[in-house]
Amino acid sequence: MTDNSYNTYKPEWVPLDGGGEAFASQIMTGVDDLDTAKGSQSKAAPAAKLSLADYVDGILAGNRMILARAITIVESNAPKHFALSQELVQRLLPYSGNSVRVGITGVPGAGKSTFIEALGCYLCRQGKKVAVLAVDPSSSLSKGSILGDKTRMENLAKEANAFIRPSPSGGTLGGVTRKSRETILLCEAAGYDTVLLETVGVGQSETTVRSMVDFFLVLVITGAGDDLQGIKKGIIELADAILVNKADGDNQQKALVTKADYNQILHYLRPATEGWTTKAYSCSSLTGEGIEDIWQVILNFIEIMQENGQLQSKRQQQTLSWVKQVAEEHIRNIIKQNPRVQDRMLQLEQQLLAGSIPATLATQNLITIIEEELKK
Amino acid sequence: MTDNSYNTYKPEWVPLDGGGEAFASQIMTGVDDLDTAKGSQSKAAPAAKLSLADYVDGILAGNRMILARAITIVESNAPKHFALSQELVQRLLPYSGNSVRVGITGVPGAGKSTFIEALGCYLCRQGKKVAVLAVDPSSSLSKGSILGDKTRMENLAKEANAFIRPSPSGGTLGGVTRKSRETILLCEAAGYDTVLLETVGVGQSETTVRSMVDFFLVLVITGAGDDLQGIKKGIIELADAILVNKADGDNQQKALVTKADYNQILHYLRPATEGWTTKAYSCSSLTGEGIEDIWQVILNFIEIMQENGQLQSKRQQQTLSWVKQVAEEHIRNIIKQNPRVQDRMLQLEQQLLAGSIPATLATQNLITIIEEELKK
Repeated sequence: MTDNSYNTYKPEWVPLDGGGEAFASQIMTGVDDLDTAKGSQSKAAPAAKLSLADYVDGILAGNRMILARAITIVESNAPKHFALSQELVQRLLPYSGNSVRVGITGVPGAGKSTFIEALGCYLCRQGKKVAVLAVDPSSSLSKGSILGDKTRMENLAKEANAFIRPSPSGGTLGGVTRKSRETILLCEAAGYDTVLLETVGVGQSETTVRSMVDFFLVLVITGAGDDLQGIKKGIIELADAILVNKADGDNQQKALVTKADYNQILHYLRPATEGWTTKAYSCSSLTGEGIEDIWQVILNFIEIMQENGQLQSKRQQQTLSWVKQVAEEHIRNIIKQNPRVQDRMLQLEQQLLAGSIPATLATQNLITIIEEELKK
Repeated sequence: MTDNSYNTYKPEWVPLDGGGEAFASQIMTGVDDLDTAKGSQSKAAPAAKLSLADYVDGILAGNRMILARAITIVESNAPKHFALSQELVQRLLPYSGNSVRVGITGVPGAGKSTFIEALGCYLCRQGKKVAVLAVDPSSSLSKGSILGDKTRMENLAKEANAFIRPSPSGGTLGGVTRKSRETILLCEAAGYDTVLLETVGVGQSETTVRSMVDFFLVLVITGAGDDLQGIKKGIIELADAILVNKADGDNQQKALVTKADYNQILHYLRPATEGWTTKAYSCSSLTGEGIEDIWQVILNFIEIMQENGQLQSKRQQQTLSWVKQVAEEHIRNIIKQNPRVQDRMLQLEQQLLAGSIPATLATQNLITIIEEELKK
């Protein structure tokens, strides 16, 4: 897991004495020495310990270094950082919510990084402040998360108005989701008006990202033959737009055909967002063609959803359902990890597979055990 | 809810003195006088009270009247019938499992009844014994369940080898699912080698039926224009086959175009069953064309799944996941119905909507209350 790429790449803040351990994408057991960790981009002065007020003021002033340190606290698994992170989020809540939140996914090879770089640079040129975050529940430096490949997004990393942050790691889906949700809030409080949330598309990650954003964009590429390669099956129904990337050079004609194919399919599927028609578009991250167009599509979506009130209610529903979901997941984990429940479940499984017990009796039996154990 | 259509239609068993109350599709509060209810198709002799052994022997001998009464006990919400039904299922388990279980859905107007009648009659002519069941979580006679329309399936109802049963009703999805699952087992023990499980396609009913069958068939019709009307969106990915019904007369050419359209879409979607390619077919329930063909498709599917062992493992997984799901649903209901949890949730919702509390703190707060209440 030791990888020194972050020393040559440009992360916002590096804890010099802590090694790589303070980075979210490497934290597995928690950071305990974070507040005393020295570090700055200049590698000269040790970072002073910051108070809650320092964090709040620094973030509201748009201080990137302080924002980065605050995110590290939010992402930390150490219990002592949890209270601080929650106070911080509470204080910054009133200043959050003022961004366009866009989720971006696509299979490896779809060109997510080059697209995000092209879109991010375009937005920075328009005077936007762009935060690029990543969600990857299976995160590790070797699996292609943003920081993993130091050559990615070099141009965007140089923009003063761009803030790039790798995946948080840590345990349950609920854990990763909490960190990403709160990181979005911190970035918004720091003045970022556009949040691009990338996911590498492993497991449930698209659904997770979908539940945190206003607009969900699925990047695809043209297939080898007449088949629509380059899309993870089942993802198409989550999309607010499908974007055929790499529509340039010899590939341009094929990309347009692919776009038409997707449009035909989308015609028959339930759109991801009520009142919006999901369509396919094309772009080239290389030439920049289509980048402005897709941004206009997103702005158009946001405008419609703001006017009919759906944007606010969607965000509220996202928060509410997240709270319920995490609470349920917590209870489910307690049940799943209970040794007596586990034993009985194994036993019942064998009986069910052998056909020696009816399913209803097995269910009653399981419920009884669970209720007894929950009462302990 | 009072509807006398079952007096003119041909149900298997009518409790004369109990009014309509003993019918599953009307039971909401439970039947307490079932075992003493008089009734027979001849309206003459009172039905004797049956012992467990009577039920077991009667069902294994293929006695339709006893099967129908046993299903009524399985479907009853009365606590005193529950123990008997579970003993019955336990005794009959070793004799169950020997059928091809086919789920059939389609929007109203897709011609489900005429198709089931055409397929059922065809199978009876082949010497098969066919049970037709329905799953409709929102069941009531007025909503188009099998028994509701007395003119439906008249021919099939006359077949000695066909057994038709309306929807069970009763509370939770878990409740309806249990009744339908156990009704399938009883029919199999009574010698029915083909079970056709119809759903009217309300709410989650397709997913429910999907979780109980080997093969899931989605009936569609040709649209009015160039659009693929006649399919509930999101259902297409559950299908093992899509069947364009009403491919007859003036409609035939259009049906073939619709079939081709579906095939093109299916080409790009994840198939519902691994190792099987979902395709579109056409048939006419009127002329009978294509009925034999679709049955051959189903048999081919079953053969492949039997050979590679997927059929057995799928059924086992269906049972296991049902047990876990119902246990979880039970715990979730306990939590949801707890007054203190309800109050706190309402309070937290208001705070979250007002933005006065961070989601993570709300979650912790909710979890604490839930844990306290579960321990009581």
